[in-house]
Amino acid sequence: MKIQKIGILLLLAVSLNCFGQETNMEKKDVAKGEMMVRIAELEIDPNAIDEYLNILKEEAEASVRLESGVICIYPMYQKENPTQIRLLEIYANKAAYESHLLTPHFKHYKETTLKMVKKLKLIEMQAIDPESMAIIFNKLKQ
Amino acid sequence: MKIQKIGILLLLAVSLNCFGQETNMEKKDVAKGEMMVRIAELEIDPNAIDEYLNILKEEAEASVRLESGVICIYPMYQKENPTQIRLLEIYANKAAYESHLLTPHFKHYKETTLKMVKKLKLIEMQAIDPESMAIIFNKLKQ
Repeated sequence: MKIQKIGILLLLAVSLNCFGQETNMEKKDVAKGEMMVRIAELEIDPNAIDEYLNILKEEAEASVRLESGVICIYPMYQKENPTQIRLLEIYANKAAYESHLLTPHFKHYKETTLKMVKKLKLIEMQAIDPESMAIIFNKLKQ
Repeated sequence: MKIQKIGILLLLAVSLNCFGQETNMEKKDVAKGEMMVRIAELEIDPNAIDEYLNILKEEAEASVRLESGVICIYPMYQKENPTQIRLLEIYANKAAYESHLLTPHFKHYKETTLKMVKKLKLIEMQAIDPESMAIIFNKLKQ
């Protein structure tokens, strides 16, 4: 594989805030498509939005950096309504998610933002295309 | 950088159906956080859902594989309501998105699924954490 391709992949993984040090078991769960995928929909108190975003950024960054089973936490807000937050969360498996809930950085996030969050909806998702992983992976190896 | 880390990054990029051959200009736009990020919310005719998912899978895979400016198209459905589709779409910049609309695979998708889509909502998003890219990138280089 060319260095250039590796660079592109690094940039993509980094730009998506998606990086961890998955264990072999977690990598297998990802490959088997046993990831836990979720969209979190939040509405934040407009008076607390700046503070909320800072705390969320820290929590998302720490989760991806410190937790082997956190594949991706990708936080966004709606351009037309910046108090509407959406997170794409991908965990290697359910155990990784349960472990995430017990970490100091998640507990800190939860405690400090409790009063800022006006609405919270957690929607379990299924990724549509686990098969294409194999196709693209083969392409990368060529 | 260790081979193991490269492997993990490959797996992550592949598992997210996020891979392209970005040009230098597009890589700069990604690095500057000038990506176009969108969540598409669709409701599909229940009688056409299997056919729709097949067409969508093909279109998402082709877009990421063939278009340099398509960073990521990540299609999902709600587990509790599988006719509710959500796509996380990330383009290197607005030009990349406009170019995407002119591709044969997108046109094919649009024409063949027109009658299957009961509702379509396109929501422009802003990624919350462009700064963390630099932090994680530095970490990777260590």
